Amino acid sequence: MVIAMDRIEFRIAFGKRVEKFRKKLGLSYRELAQKCDVDHSNISKIEKGEVDLRISTIQELARGLEIHPQELFNFKIDEKS
Amino acid sequence: MVIAMDRIEFRIAFGKRVEKFRKKLGLSYRELAQKCDVDHSNISKIEKGEVDLRISTIQELARGLEIHPQELFNFKIDEKS
Repeated sequence: MVIAMDRIEFRIAFGKRVEKFRKKLGLSYRELAQKCDVDHSNISKIEKGEVDLRISTIQELARGLEIHPQELFNFKIDEKS
Repeated sequence: MVIAMDRIEFRIAFGKRVEKFRKKLGLSYRELAQKCDVDHSNISKIEKGEVDLRISTIQELARGLEIHPQELFNFKIDEKS
């Protein structure tokens, strides 16, 4: 049986990737917000999986984090059980 | 000099990936729409880069296309010139 990730889990996994690369650059929410067109309060919500963000925001975050957007989706999406 | 992809080009590149995998499975818009929670008219707009779609829609499309969402971002994002 394959347990597909639900929407919240998917957004949380995505948010963890944003957090990982933000911390890797040693940036605060405000510092990352200055590097891309995303509000700092939104970044913290995105990292907690609280926002159904748009593809333009994904593009902006990747630009600010200096990574390819693919990197933000580099996580496992379903558990084989 | 690095020319960053603008938002429309980014969405068009993403849309081409959706189209590629949809055709690979031999699915029409309606058939893909039946496999995931995305309206068939929206799929055609997404493939043309006309929609600033949300991450939940990206997740749904990947599920319907039976691929990892990363595959939909497997394209070059900036041209070194």
